[in-house]
Amino acid sequence: MGQYPIKIDEAIEWLASFGGEQDGGVTRTLYSQPWKEAQQALKGWMEEVGLLTNYDSIGNLFGRLPSPHHNAKTILIGSHVDTVKSGGKYDGAYGIIAGVLALKYLKKQFGQPAIHLEVVSFCEEEGSRFPLALWGSGMMTGLYSFNDSVDMKDSEGISFETAMMAAGFGNSEYRVRKDIQTFIELHIEQGPTLEKVEKSIGIVKAIVGQKRYRVTVKGESNHVGTTSMKWRRDALHGAVNMIHDLYESVKEYDEDLVTSVGQLFVEPNVPNVIPNQVQFTVDARHPNESVLDSFCQQFTQMFQEHAKKLDLDIEVEMWHEVHPAQMDSGLNEIIQSICTRSTISSHWMNSGAGHDAQLFAQVCPTTILFVPSQGGISHSPLEYTSPKDLETGLEVLIQLLHQLAY
Amino acid sequence: MGQYPIKIDEAIEWLASFGGEQDGGVTRTLYSQPWKEAQQALKGWMEEVGLLTNYDSIGNLFGRLPSPHHNAKTILIGSHVDTVKSGGKYDGAYGIIAGVLALKYLKKQFGQPAIHLEVVSFCEEEGSRFPLALWGSGMMTGLYSFNDSVDMKDSEGISFETAMMAAGFGNSEYRVRKDIQTFIELHIEQGPTLEKVEKSIGIVKAIVGQKRYRVTVKGESNHVGTTSMKWRRDALHGAVNMIHDLYESVKEYDEDLVTSVGQLFVEPNVPNVIPNQVQFTVDARHPNESVLDSFCQQFTQMFQEHAKKLDLDIEVEMWHEVHPAQMDSGLNEIIQSICTRSTISSHWMNSGAGHDAQLFAQVCPTTILFVPSQGGISHSPLEYTSPKDLETGLEVLIQLLHQLAY
Repeated sequence: MGQYPIKIDEAIEWLASFGGEQDGGVTRTLYSQPWKEAQQALKGWMEEVGLLTNYDSIGNLFGRLPSPHHNAKTILIGSHVDTVKSGGKYDGAYGIIAGVLALKYLKKQFGQPAIHLEVVSFCEEEGSRFPLALWGSGMMTGLYSFNDSVDMKDSEGISFETAMMAAGFGNSEYRVRKDIQTFIELHIEQGPTLEKVEKSIGIVKAIVGQKRYRVTVKGESNHVGTTSMKWRRDALHGAVNMIHDLYESVKEYDEDLVTSVGQLFVEPNVPNVIPNQVQFTVDARHPNESVLDSFCQQFTQMFQEHAKKLDLDIEVEMWHEVHPAQMDSGLNEIIQSICTRSTISSHWMNSGAGHDAQLFAQVCPTTILFVPSQGGISHSPLEYTSPKDLETGLEVLIQLLHQLAY
Repeated sequence: MGQYPIKIDEAIEWLASFGGEQDGGVTRTLYSQPWKEAQQALKGWMEEVGLLTNYDSIGNLFGRLPSPHHNAKTILIGSHVDTVKSGGKYDGAYGIIAGVLALKYLKKQFGQPAIHLEVVSFCEEEGSRFPLALWGSGMMTGLYSFNDSVDMKDSEGISFETAMMAAGFGNSEYRVRKDIQTFIELHIEQGPTLEKVEKSIGIVKAIVGQKRYRVTVKGESNHVGTTSMKWRRDALHGAVNMIHDLYESVKEYDEDLVTSVGQLFVEPNVPNVIPNQVQFTVDARHPNESVLDSFCQQFTQMFQEHAKKLDLDIEVEMWHEVHPAQMDSGLNEIIQSICTRSTISSHWMNSGAGHDAQLFAQVCPTTILFVPSQGGISHSPLEYTSPKDLETGLEVLIQLLHQLAY
């Protein structure tokens, strides 16, 4: 083996070495030193396999297998190079690596395509360093602008602009490309569905819509022993009633609805003091926007009623919203036919997680394909997909690109 | 006014300056810097009014007005110097301040007592920094030992021993005193009863029994978007069901029963990750031990059932138990006669809060007297008792000590 990897599982380990940690986890946040080294290494690898490389002005990296037709459009494939803190080796990385290997194979076997083929390594998707997610695809699609990152700071107080400049980007205006005809992403599922149904490829119908809320419940601190139950204004009692009924209300909806309270802070958070404030988050997701809206309206009203009953004050603020994104049914039908032809098992499903594909779906025909995640575990050093499943995903991607571009 | 306060309301403000916060609250947890400064300041004040001072080996501070009779026993009066986080100015502090002012007055008016009179500023009562309450009186009465604090850590990971050593204590064996004949505590009510019945002095028949539990619920972390509701092992969902039913079950009991969840920690506490662990406290109180036992057995069983339903692991550990404590009826009759003689209004009641007096009741005749708390508010920056009510409590204490010791 030379400087660059040959097989897909080797490539996963090779890319994971940039920001790799002792426990097998990877931390490669936007514009960090491991991030810079990873993008530079990918650039070298793309060039070695014969692709034309360039960066855009925010650090998205491209490797191009051009068509001889100058007026041809471009089929873009890829995923994001950044990770969450202590994330896994596969999330994002797999889509870039599979893209490079697919173009390498197609170039060698079939030469120049009729349509430009291009692999992208998006600079950022996770929102882990700065409170802004999908930066790479947001800028490429023209849905974001530099203004969206202004005033943002990371946990060490470094501004977005300073970090971007230090990495060598952000010096010129962003030019949104008009040539992207199709976007295709290959990704690990990050959930347990494919493993449970024992299928190799997930064909994604839609990426779910998300709404995230911050709920603040305010009551009155008092001594737990001397304040009769009837005279209390206990913020935690109120919050618990709300969250209890939130989980109960999910049962009235179909299985695609998921909701979660992941974060909850109590004040003053002392065993013998009645809590005067509780702040918690609610994350709600569903592929159908009107179902999601109805669920969110229902629980915000229910929260208000609980607050009133216990004489508590409440604020409910939505701080993050993503609309459901429909994947292209034409592309999905082709993927299904490839799987059938090659006797690869497949499963139609929704994506409960957000992906770069959800923004491209607003501007061009787009789809995302999944391969299984062992135990459904992701965003963890324990994230794992077998070499066989990685190979199967790559095979489907190659056949899809061949069918579309040759 | 010189370095030290003269009037009781001045003394309250002076002591509140150690650990005082902008909103009028006080945070003076065990062995913290404000705690050390408060004890040193009290030591200076005690010496200025002519008391003999010393610390014991855990940081309880004493100011002694000795009898000329070397074999005389000691009447101990006082309360605790520590506060909850963001607590009030009166809780604990009032009993120490009234003790110093009472001994100052008695010394000036009547000289040496027949029985030693001694004021104590207990190092700790609240259990706010470490999960151990009544440390000061527990050690003094011989009911606790150094072993009870071993392995305890505060929320920043500092061990009990490290904190104690850093404050200059814990270097020598604890010697339990055998000379305490009587313990008398003066305290704010911390509840709304005296204000509601419009009486100046609360004569306490009994201090309620308490049990405090730490409940740890363990599930599995996962991505909130990709994990279907039915496949989750959500520790917060389980904890919320438990706490919801805890509050529901109180309704089956009489009004003397109170329960509270004051502290709750979620892990990893991130909006888009299903919580894999929740740890919370339960505090339950009642003056009748068998009623309290029955309630606690009921909810611990109910918690187990909820854990089982959601496939969660659970540990329920009782970390603090206080049996109901009867106050000395002889002392209470004297207090009643003093109030009657001085036309001070009084009310016989139970204490819903724990106090240092409850441990002394196990080893010597003990009582506690209450003065009103405005709005029943305590453990809050809004805690308040009027100067007039503070003075009335001090007057009763002085008459009681005069009657007992001269």
